[in-house]
Amino acid sequence: MTDIYENVMELAKRRGFIWPAAECYGSVAGFVDYGPLGAMMKRKIENIWRDFYVVREGYYEIECPTIGIEPIFVASGHVKGFSDIMCQCPHCGEYLRADHVVAAAGGKWPGGGSHDAIAEVLRHVPCTSCGTKLGPVAVFDFNLMFQTSIGPGSQRKGYLRPETAQGMFTDFGRLLRFYRDKLPFGAVQIGKAFRNEISPRQGMIRLREFTQAEAEIFVHPGEKNHPSFARYRGYRVPLLSCLHQQQGQEPELIPMGDAVRAGIIASEYVAYYIALTHDILVTIGVDPAKIRFRQHMMDERAHYAADCWDAEFHSPRFGWVEVVGIADRTDYDLKAHAAHSGLSFTAYIPYETPLVVQRRRIIPNMGRLGPRFRNRAKKVAEAIEHGIPGDQGMEITLENELIHVPPELYEVKDETVEVRGEEVVPHVIEPSYGIDRMIYAVLEHSYTEEEVEGELRRVLRFPPWVAPVQVAVFPLMPRDGLDEFAHTLVDSLAAENMVAEYDDNGAIGRRYRRQDEVGTPYAITIDYETKDDGTVTIRERDSMAQVRVPIEKVPEILRSLIRGTLTFSQLNV
Amino acid sequence: MTDIYENVMELAKRRGFIWPAAECYGSVAGFVDYGPLGAMMKRKIENIWRDFYVVREGYYEIECPTIGIEPIFVASGHVKGFSDIMCQCPHCGEYLRADHVVAAAGGKWPGGGSHDAIAEVLRHVPCTSCGTKLGPVAVFDFNLMFQTSIGPGSQRKGYLRPETAQGMFTDFGRLLRFYRDKLPFGAVQIGKAFRNEISPRQGMIRLREFTQAEAEIFVHPGEKNHPSFARYRGYRVPLLSCLHQQQGQEPELIPMGDAVRAGIIASEYVAYYIALTHDILVTIGVDPAKIRFRQHMMDERAHYAADCWDAEFHSPRFGWVEVVGIADRTDYDLKAHAAHSGLSFTAYIPYETPLVVQRRRIIPNMGRLGPRFRNRAKKVAEAIEHGIPGDQGMEITLENELIHVPPELYEVKDETVEVRGEEVVPHVIEPSYGIDRMIYAVLEHSYTEEEVEGELRRVLRFPPWVAPVQVAVFPLMPRDGLDEFAHTLVDSLAAENMVAEYDDNGAIGRRYRRQDEVGTPYAITIDYETKDDGTVTIRERDSMAQVRVPIEKVPEILRSLIRGTLTFSQLNV
Repeated sequence: MTDIYENVMELAKRRGFIWPAAECYGSVAGFVDYGPLGAMMKRKIENIWRDFYVVREGYYEIECPTIGIEPIFVASGHVKGFSDIMCQCPHCGEYLRADHVVAAAGGKWPGGGSHDAIAEVLRHVPCTSCGTKLGPVAVFDFNLMFQTSIGPGSQRKGYLRPETAQGMFTDFGRLLRFYRDKLPFGAVQIGKAFRNEISPRQGMIRLREFTQAEAEIFVHPGEKNHPSFARYRGYRVPLLSCLHQQQGQEPELIPMGDAVRAGIIASEYVAYYIALTHDILVTIGVDPAKIRFRQHMMDERAHYAADCWDAEFHSPRFGWVEVVGIADRTDYDLKAHAAHSGLSFTAYIPYETPLVVQRRRIIPNMGRLGPRFRNRAKKVAEAIEHGIPGDQGMEITLENELIHVPPELYEVKDETVEVRGEEVVPHVIEPSYGIDRMIYAVLEHSYTEEEVEGELRRVLRFPPWVAPVQVAVFPLMPRDGLDEFAHTLVDSLAAENMVAEYDDNGAIGRRYRRQDEVGTPYAITIDYETKDDGTVTIRERDSMAQVRVPIEKVPEILRSLIRGTLTFSQLNV
Repeated sequence: MTDIYENVMELAKRRGFIWPAAECYGSVAGFVDYGPLGAMMKRKIENIWRDFYVVREGYYEIECPTIGIEPIFVASGHVKGFSDIMCQCPHCGEYLRADHVVAAAGGKWPGGGSHDAIAEVLRHVPCTSCGTKLGPVAVFDFNLMFQTSIGPGSQRKGYLRPETAQGMFTDFGRLLRFYRDKLPFGAVQIGKAFRNEISPRQGMIRLREFTQAEAEIFVHPGEKNHPSFARYRGYRVPLLSCLHQQQGQEPELIPMGDAVRAGIIASEYVAYYIALTHDILVTIGVDPAKIRFRQHMMDERAHYAADCWDAEFHSPRFGWVEVVGIADRTDYDLKAHAAHSGLSFTAYIPYETPLVVQRRRIIPNMGRLGPRFRNRAKKVAEAIEHGIPGDQGMEITLENELIHVPPELYEVKDETVEVRGEEVVPHVIEPSYGIDRMIYAVLEHSYTEEEVEGELRRVLRFPPWVAPVQVAVFPLMPRDGLDEFAHTLVDSLAAENMVAEYDDNGAIGRRYRRQDEVGTPYAITIDYETKDDGTVTIRERDSMAQVRVPIEKVPEILRSLIRGTLTFSQLNV
């Protein structure tokens, strides 16, 4: 096997999974098309994600526009902070991401340094495009949001959203009402997001337009125990915590309950979604031996985040690649939108039993204040309400003037009040998935090459529930009624919502190879025995084993095999 | 009922179907969010569309980026021609769509007129925003594509696609190979598209970001009979043809077979997708009494289109609204991309039996031409190959010089060749659906108000397969074990992939009203009888009738009701 990325992408292009967008016009880095099989697989993976988050967790999906108006991204911090530092090579004119140039030269990136400090480092390193030493270059920030304008006359700036998350935050009020004002609740979104990368060179790994699946779970700040934590308490996940990284250790398989108890993971909520993420990744076909969860070190973590973990998959070409991020973002997002919109982003939490609170109120006597202070009476009254009463009255300050207020001008009342609840700004737990990277991970980890009878056999070992085509149906010969048997079977499988592909073209061996390449888990062959005794062969992709079964049982058998309630070896008996 | 649009949208906002995007920042016209119930309903409608186009027609779905590079839209004509004529009111500064201003004043739009002619009409009409007579205004074209730039330094112009169709066209070559070089084939796409409307004021009807579902079916130019036409031959659709419009007639219910035979619809392909579109619209819940198919008049039809029909639904507020367009676009799109990309956009069609063709070739005798014409010999030879040989030789023209070529300088050879097939540029049949308008039509046509026991009852009469929540489960009281019965039932319904909502809040009557408002077709009540005899009541939304059934039969009964294989009145017996 040469470079697995090249092999996987060659197959993906040739067989209709993924190819560069707008190839006929030379394409542009960072944009891909999903072809017929790729789009089918993508929808299946998105639906598996929904099974976990929408059906099982009960978080409703919403759908917000991809174009957002400027105030959203001012509040979220993207207008100011969502940028890469770049320079332009004075020799070849190429735009370069400054940190990539420094890393390529083996230099040390002056993280957090000034533009001048960065320019000083860049002077001495070669351009990654033309190889010439850069020399003096201007260094500047490049905002990674795609910008556009809404309406004529550039009336309003718009940005293509860099993440789907902001829609759930700006809709918080409506969502809270939808969930009848109760915490916790969650909302999810699967949709396009955009990052105007400076010069992306990593194919599927660094797209300018990509699909995210994000959940925002709004929880009471004081209640970070997940109600269904029992499901994953004993679930073991390879964790590479801050401490593991500091001590240069390998990831360690730790049950989630232990990880929370030992303080490795900050809360049950974060641990629950780490485990659920591992569950999803393995379900869709990412190799569990090539998954790890890496905790963000304090210096890479956002200042507001209580905890943050990346799910990473391993690729021989790209090393460890982030594919999912799971963070406790605290109240950062809701507070930011509250501050910028002037609206309230809180939930009212009633106490189980109301609190009884002693409260002292000072009530100004307006009948007496009026004659004495005339047009200043109202302001004096306000000041009195917040003053500190003493035996001799109180001192207040009004327009820099110290005023003595004798006790007969107000009344002090001690009250017992019942406080029934409080307004809280919920904390946000955010699992955020990169769907395209997940698809690439599945393709790469499913891809195998082997020699069978002197020929190269390429196989995509997809789980049956992810494979775009579930079953192929081959008549041994396209005649003698075998083709009719095959067409009838295809129709009955389609009626059961299976994608069944008819193929009568070429030798059976070649047809098997074609299906192996696109990951079809099962193939049925109709031969002359079928006409005699009504049986057909089912062939399993992975073992290449074949079993004869009655044709009328095929739909039921396939359904069980695809659902995983039956294994092929059980059929063999 | 006041304005139905206001009522529908008020309910849609309040109950979590649809609301303006980014409300907390004041929103911008033309952008909406789908809330939890709206997004669920949208996915159901998209999946019904897939059932028709992907599962039944067998056209694979693809997924292309929403950002496209400039050459795509130069070729498609959008860079040059996708614009509205506008002006800016000199008094209030508002940007106005010129045709809307003229129409609002009851004036006649000088269609196809020059900007000066349009300015002359605008002078005399009032601004639709401030009401002041416009007077002299500048008139200009405004391109409706959202523009952005890809990469730093404005390296490349990008546009947000105004339709999903172009992806299928630019991918034609790869799709043709995927379908093993055979016509007809189709590809579909469901995704976001964008139009930077000048000043949209029609809510859901005129969005700047919207969802399209488009199919592009590539057919042999000479074979426009749909292979499954029999399915819809007798299907009757209300057609408003060009002739009906010219003669001021009402739409007429005509079977598709007759419409094609009478030449009202140009081909079986167009007729097939008109019928299929009618089928989809009725399936999702658009009122068949408020649907018509209007043929484009010659002057509104694109010059290249062989035929074009709009499906329209009727709304008291908006009148007849286009919701789907069905066009035979001939070879326009593929030829345009071929011309701009320099690549071939053809399919090779083998003849069933090769044609035998007589062909005459003229072969220059280079041995004799060389000495005679020296350095001009090659050009003379080329001219000879295309010349017309006579008894005395031939006359050719070379660089404006007439040259006589005697017969001994060439040989004439008559050959018999076998032609096995031909390269054709396929024609494109395009059904193009506006998903958001479909959703609005379903909401409006499903919405009813009635008085029940002195109270206003608002109901969304969705078909069960479109309703976001399929069934509500109410324990009569949230105690005495009734709640446990209810929770268990909800879980068993969820396991069957039904969306079941538990509600124990308030009087049963109020719970019914809440579910009526969101269109939940069935509600189950658990009462004290349930504890005694294991029966529950099912209540049907539309008739408000109730029937007692055994609790263990509920999942099966609901499945049949929702699929439409059982009616509620059958249960009653």
